[in-house]
Amino acid sequence: MTQRLRVTVWNENRHEKTNEKVRDVYPNGIHAAIGEGLGTNDFEVAYATLDDAEHGLTEARLNETDVLFWWGHMAHGEVSDEIVERVHQRVLKGMGLIVLHSGHFSKIFKKLMGTSCDLKWREADEKERLWVVSPGHPIVEGIGEYIELEAEEMYGEHFDIPQPDELVLVSWFEGGEVFRSGCTFSRGQGKIFYFRPGHETYPTYFNPQVRRILANAAKWAAPSTRDYPKYGNAKPLESIKAKG
Amino acid sequence: MTQRLRVTVWNENRHEKTNEKVRDVYPNGIHAAIGEGLGTNDFEVAYATLDDAEHGLTEARLNETDVLFWWGHMAHGEVSDEIVERVHQRVLKGMGLIVLHSGHFSKIFKKLMGTSCDLKWREADEKERLWVVSPGHPIVEGIGEYIELEAEEMYGEHFDIPQPDELVLVSWFEGGEVFRSGCTFSRGQGKIFYFRPGHETYPTYFNPQVRRILANAAKWAAPSTRDYPKYGNAKPLESIKAKG
Amino acid sequence: MTQRLRVTVWNENRHEKTNEKVRDVYPNGIHAAIGEGLGTNDFEVAYATLDDAEHGLTEARLNETDVLFWWGHMAHGEVSDEIVERVHQRVLKGMGLIVLHSGHFSKIFKKLMGTSCDLKWREADEKERLWVVSPGHPIVEGIGEYIELEAEEMYGEHFDIPQPDELVLVSWFEGGEVFRSGCTFSRGQGKIFYFRPGHETYPTYFNPQVRRILANAAKWAAPSTRDYPKYGNAKPLESIKAKG
Amino acid sequence: MTQRLRVTVWNENRHEKTNEKVRDVYPNGIHAAIGEGLGTNDFEVAYATLDDAEHGLTEARLNETDVLFWWGHMAHGEVSDEIVERVHQRVLKGMGLIVLHSGHFSKIFKKLMGTSCDLKWREADEKERLWVVSPGHPIVEGIGEYIELEAEEMYGEHFDIPQPDELVLVSWFEGGEVFRSGCTFSRGQGKIFYFRPGHETYPTYFNPQVRRILANAAKWAAPSTRDYPKYGNAKPLESIKAKG
Repeated sequence: MTQRLRVTVWNENRHEKTNEKVRDVYPNGIHAAIGEGLGTNDFEVAYATLDDAEHGLTEARLNETDVLFWWGHMAHGEVSDEIVERVHQRVLKGMGLIVLHSGHFSKIFKKLMGTSCDLKWREADEKERLWVVSPGHPIVEGIGEYIELEAEEMYGEHFDIPQPDELVLVSWFEGGEVFRSGCTFSRGQGKIFYFRPGHETYPTYFNPQVRRILANAAKWAAPSTRDYPKYGNAKPLESIKAKG
Repeated sequence: MTQRLRVTVWNENRHEKTNEKVRDVYPNGIHAAIGEGLGTNDFEVAYATLDDAEHGLTEARLNETDVLFWWGHMAHGEVSDEIVERVHQRVLKGMGLIVLHSGHFSKIFKKLMGTSCDLKWREADEKERLWVVSPGHPIVEGIGEYIELEAEEMYGEHFDIPQPDELVLVSWFEGGEVFRSGCTFSRGQGKIFYFRPGHETYPTYFNPQVRRILANAAKWAAPSTRDYPKYGNAKPLESIKAKG
Repeated sequence: MTQRLRVTVWNENRHEKTNEKVRDVYPNGIHAAIGEGLGTNDFEVAYATLDDAEHGLTEARLNETDVLFWWGHMAHGEVSDEIVERVHQRVLKGMGLIVLHSGHFSKIFKKLMGTSCDLKWREADEKERLWVVSPGHPIVEGIGEYIELEAEEMYGEHFDIPQPDELVLVSWFEGGEVFRSGCTFSRGQGKIFYFRPGHETYPTYFNPQVRRILANAAKWAAPSTRDYPKYGNAKPLESIKAKG
Repeated sequence: MTQRLRVTVWNENRHEKTNEKVRDVYPNGIHAAIGEGLGTNDFEVAYATLDDAEHGLTEARLNETDVLFWWGHMAHGEVSDEIVERVHQRVLKGMGLIVLHSGHFSKIFKKLMGTSCDLKWREADEKERLWVVSPGHPIVEGIGEYIELEAEEMYGEHFDIPQPDELVLVSWFEGGEVFRSGCTFSRGQGKIFYFRPGHETYPTYFNPQVRRILANAAKWAAPSTRDYPKYGNAKPLESIKAKG
């Protein structure tokens, strides 16, 4: 594959504007840290944020996007239903979608899952250890037995999602909970990966192993080249006997 | 289990009012044929239709429903979003849902699936043969190797649904198509079964094997007795070391 | 269902003979603690152990068994291949199988899974907390958000099994690992449940929540009444055009 | 990916020696038709057959194989258990495996599945139409809505396999049956694809769409670069409180 994947990183980009602590960790925004982590060898990276016109997700932008990353948290409700519908249609037609951390409560993820996507949470600077449970999956290529994050927000079960197609990572938390942290789903022609870590006050998206997961996931979620299926009224392919 | 399952059969009940052919096949409505097929030994059956107040799906009715059957076709758009939301919440909290035939395009099914739920279709009085592919599944208890229906509407792949948790039945059609005809899904605490046959102009819901499937499915989808999970902010169960 | 399920509890029953500590915890053997926990309301319980003739698993015994429990550890290699083959055939024809703890390395489980079934382990008297991740599943009926065991052996990922049909419970361990502790599989017409806890030196099988899980699992794994599928050469159901 | 995948095509190669009709269709053997179909742009192809020393599957050969194709039919029993064990270990450690047609009854496939792998069959020169049911899957990249084969052997359900991780293709047969024709499985670190068509008397492996599927499958099944998981006794990662 000599052609680079076209990735768009969407970020709410609000914490960065209002919270000094977040700005210290992500001076150029969470989206920039994610995009820089992907690098330019395999990826052509664009950015879009909530306060851009059409949230930066114009028809043109989405049509030139193979894989969309989604980070949102405090302003899920401000994302317009029309744009959510547009992203939804693009996923069903094959665009990959990587939903990060608090994006579990985004309109687009809830729409794709059909469930509440609710969970337990706690901000207590606690240790997280993400264990690989599908060691042959391309998303964990190059990753060891686990990824350890010294301090993160906790997300705990029950996580109200449909059973994932493949469960790739499960988190252990210092405070006593577990969480299905790396989950794949297929919807229409699109591939979706939910990846848990990435609270805005921690430098998680600078972690080399996290960055490797994100790059692997983008490659895994890349669309196949294929015509969209035909739906609706269909002529018979074989002759049908007259009945009665 | 000495207590009978409380089933509500919801039917759009519009074809029956406007189409003489349908009225000939289902003089008391499709819902009545479904309910009578379940019988009164194991089930306590109630009915609800689109033109009832609140479509017959009041809070009280849903709270007294263990399993809801859904048949709709020509008037999906007339089902109010508020009632769809109410049914959705009940499914996530454990109510079983059996979606029938053209209900694949109902608001509630699309909301639960997160996909377009689109498919191919043809009305040509053609033969359908539903093959059992999960022979140990309780939904096919008492069913032979396949169910043959002399004439039915055709539904063909691609059927745009998430991969089912369990694929139970696959249809062969005379005109050359196949279809995933019996599919289970779990969403929140609720169990969902999609069952393909049942076009309004055929006496499918009087077929003894189809009736057996519907009764089995209702038992399979019955809710477990269990508290709804707690979500939201959670205290640690183990002590967390101060960092830094 | 007025008829009671016929359960056979198979136990290696060697630790009990050679290890005083185990005998103190399970004076009548692990099998007796499991069987007593199931009770006699819903179950008709029989026992079989390694040192019985044919390991207690005669054709007659298996033919009268709806669900088989399996506990083994130090003597997997002494189970004869012929008996393993016999149990395998019964599972494929519909007998339920509940594999417990160190039974992950039994011949029958490895034969059904097709993988090494290997894992990490540690005996360190550590706390285990089993979280429910499929809250609508009948196996966790009546169970709270988690089961806490004050001290158990640790089993850690990667657990080399095929992806389970349904992942029901995930364990958190004090020493830092996680484990897929409650997993369902379907093989042929048989249903299989693997349940992690139950090291021989801990009173795990007296825990009321563990006992509830085992009873729920036996009911879930009960066979459906259905003819075994026909295999082999088959006549056409439709006419086939001569080619060429 | 500039490096070519190392594929070994294993063929029983007995029909070719004993049956003139087969020799007419596959003068260089089924393996050659498969290998030539893959081409040399993306693949480095080697061959191995039953009558080679160690069936051509020496340790050296397997260690240099990323993806193994398997075609066998009349001589499954002649494949030595030792070689089957060797292939099994390689799959669990990451080698991809593509099992073709009558390979459903090979020792290696049955060992990996844990079921009987039985099915219905008929040789009647009948039409097969393989429908795509997972349109976003990389294995059907470049494939239309279905593949039509004018004449093939029939395989019918029930096919006694574990539920596939992903069901990619479902066959319609002229004589009235359906079959799950393209199925993925993951075992250990290895990816497995079962693909139904390919009876020895039909030129199926010269069909361009079939060849596209085989090339796609090989790419999909390629191993990830990753250390094999550690199993066995494990030291705690966190401190454990003394109990009692």
